[in-house]
Amino acid sequence: MPANTAAFGTSEYDRRIAKTRTAMAQAGIDLLFVTDPSNQAWLTGYDGWSFYVHQGVLLAMDGDPIWWGRHMDSLGALRTCWMEADAIHGYADHYVQSTVRHPMQDLAGHIQALGLHKARIGVEMENYYYSAKAHAVLTAELPDAHFADATALVNWQRLVKSDDEIGFIRKAARITEKVINTALDRAEPGLRKNDLVADIYHAGLTGVDDIWGDYPAIVPLTPSGLDATAAHLTWNGAPMRKGEATFFELSGCYRRYHAPLCRTIFLGTPPQEMLDAEQAQLEGIEAGLNAARAGNRTCDIANAFVGVLEEHGIHREGRCGYPIGLSYPPDWGERTASIRSEDETVLEPGMVFHFMPALWMDSWGLETTETILITDSGAAEPLCNIERRLFVKE
Amino acid sequence: MPANTAAFGTSEYDRRIAKTRTAMAQAGIDLLFVTDPSNQAWLTGYDGWSFYVHQGVLLAMDGDPIWWGRHMDSLGALRTCWMEADAIHGYADHYVQSTVRHPMQDLAGHIQALGLHKARIGVEMENYYYSAKAHAVLTAELPDAHFADATALVNWQRLVKSDDEIGFIRKAARITEKVINTALDRAEPGLRKNDLVADIYHAGLTGVDDIWGDYPAIVPLTPSGLDATAAHLTWNGAPMRKGEATFFELSGCYRRYHAPLCRTIFLGTPPQEMLDAEQAQLEGIEAGLNAARAGNRTCDIANAFVGVLEEHGIHREGRCGYPIGLSYPPDWGERTASIRSEDETVLEPGMVFHFMPALWMDSWGLETTETILITDSGAAEPLCNIERRLFVKE
Repeated sequence: MPANTAAFGTSEYDRRIAKTRTAMAQAGIDLLFVTDPSNQAWLTGYDGWSFYVHQGVLLAMDGDPIWWGRHMDSLGALRTCWMEADAIHGYADHYVQSTVRHPMQDLAGHIQALGLHKARIGVEMENYYYSAKAHAVLTAELPDAHFADATALVNWQRLVKSDDEIGFIRKAARITEKVINTALDRAEPGLRKNDLVADIYHAGLTGVDDIWGDYPAIVPLTPSGLDATAAHLTWNGAPMRKGEATFFELSGCYRRYHAPLCRTIFLGTPPQEMLDAEQAQLEGIEAGLNAARAGNRTCDIANAFVGVLEEHGIHREGRCGYPIGLSYPPDWGERTASIRSEDETVLEPGMVFHFMPALWMDSWGLETTETILITDSGAAEPLCNIERRLFVKE
Repeated sequence: MPANTAAFGTSEYDRRIAKTRTAMAQAGIDLLFVTDPSNQAWLTGYDGWSFYVHQGVLLAMDGDPIWWGRHMDSLGALRTCWMEADAIHGYADHYVQSTVRHPMQDLAGHIQALGLHKARIGVEMENYYYSAKAHAVLTAELPDAHFADATALVNWQRLVKSDDEIGFIRKAARITEKVINTALDRAEPGLRKNDLVADIYHAGLTGVDDIWGDYPAIVPLTPSGLDATAAHLTWNGAPMRKGEATFFELSGCYRRYHAPLCRTIFLGTPPQEMLDAEQAQLEGIEAGLNAARAGNRTCDIANAFVGVLEEHGIHREGRCGYPIGLSYPPDWGERTASIRSEDETVLEPGMVFHFMPALWMDSWGLETTETILITDSGAAEPLCNIERRLFVKE
């Protein structure tokens, strides 16, 4: 038995493929080419850090999905996918980063061999790993095919999680609690940020008992003071300082499943405006959780939250969250629904979101967030058990 | 002063921009749109984990480069780029992952405002962060522009490093030595791989003295036994076992600069065929280093290495290395020259490669590699000081 095997049983993959094929039929697609690493893993179990070269999964309306990629990574596919060896295809190394050959020429050959070169082929036009060049080459190689934009077609099938998946996310949440507590415990004036992040990684990767830690799809975000007015700065070697707030945006990861959470710590005495904002934020989160129930819409969560903020005189624009689950870098969001006023996705039990009601103000940032599960009835369930407040160390 | 500032002085950025403009002129490009995060950072200093949304740098033939991205990340650009605020543009949050709007509509507006909507615009067609959809929208929005494929145009300007950059890579190499030694010291039967990786991360991020550790663009690769026949599997919670080889592909990172290195450890007594392969590999590396001198070509390195292997009866295909330096996930390679028999790039002093003469065999893998600097005269200089051999623990 290989040490790496597909994370789920056959029935779970069967369910996913059936669901995806229903969506393909509705979209009039005969053959789907999936480049999103998360979608590949969701359909086949493939797991490797090889998405920096062209690879993907071909899913037709019958038969097993086919994993296709660089030859040396096809060996990894043999060890992580649930399919048999005849569903794994590798291309030669001289296609890699060549200026005279492109891997999509090889893929086109496979599609031809399947007799699907005149098919309606769905491709993920808006994906990190489907470049403008890849699309240009593939369409040129298959002049008789009809290409359709299948961006997020698989991602939408991932929105409602199975019980098995929720089990994985709950495990990730145990790790999240550990990394957040590590960050809150260790933070103090003089501590270099890179040393803090080292402890965060160590806590996350050692995991909790037999819940071993995988790499999160986003590195720890831990900005302080003015850097915390920007959402996505990474750390450096500067020490933490008294009089500054630092937010931690962190996630545990278990077999590629995430449960992100943010908490903020102030070293010293927070200014009154930050304490006021904390109250508004906490009330807003309560209102959001309450609105996050099956039958309501994603916009209802956003509007409930923003409504409370407005009552407190705080104007906030932008998204307040996104679905999460299985993911690979550079993002742990699923890129389908958004928790924002213009999004009307109807909430169903089994959906999991990172409810992200962060505040980025002129001179500081305050992030307090929850990973939430939409339940059969009642308000959403926060999956991590960490006190919800602005933490303060005098 | 912000805690994050551009990593280099003005003259270094001036040099880079002048070099890039020369290449633009040669390619007949008036305006370059750069999406590769490494290229953005190289030109402007921008540093943030925000490449999962559309962003980029516009470089015309005069004036400062313009950083363009999501509004919340423009605040990070203000804190990390060397340009003034008027060269930083943010787009509204409702463009993010929207099905009805695309950020490239906003970018097209900026290009129009610059009066460059009829220009010859270079775009990086083959890049993770320039999707097929982005290209489709941008070309549709600017029907009078002429688009040219500028893939790797900036990357090629990065191939010969400045003294400042080599200084950064040397610092990264100090961290690399620490993480490789940590892995070799800690490896033993029964140790869970995730616990080993936790120690590797901790060593890398705490860094060496004032050389603080940044996140490497690839996570630690540490596969054992049969998993090591595949190049890019990540870890899991299984314990290390006696009788197996494990390879470590690791890099320290200092302010986004890398110095990757691989070493292999066998727990127990290695089979004779592995020891034979080790001898072939070490001789081949010596031959490769000797061929890696200014005036020779990249293929000379590959041919010298493969030639020695053939003498030992080992047939090896595939690339044996690539240039490295500044990088962001998912790859620490620069994606220009390759060390392989069909690549004839002429070596110049200041080029830095990950010389990657790894062997992946039927039932095990043996990775022993070096980050090397092409010098003014003589063989290449390995930048890490780690004994070059198969490590064995009885």
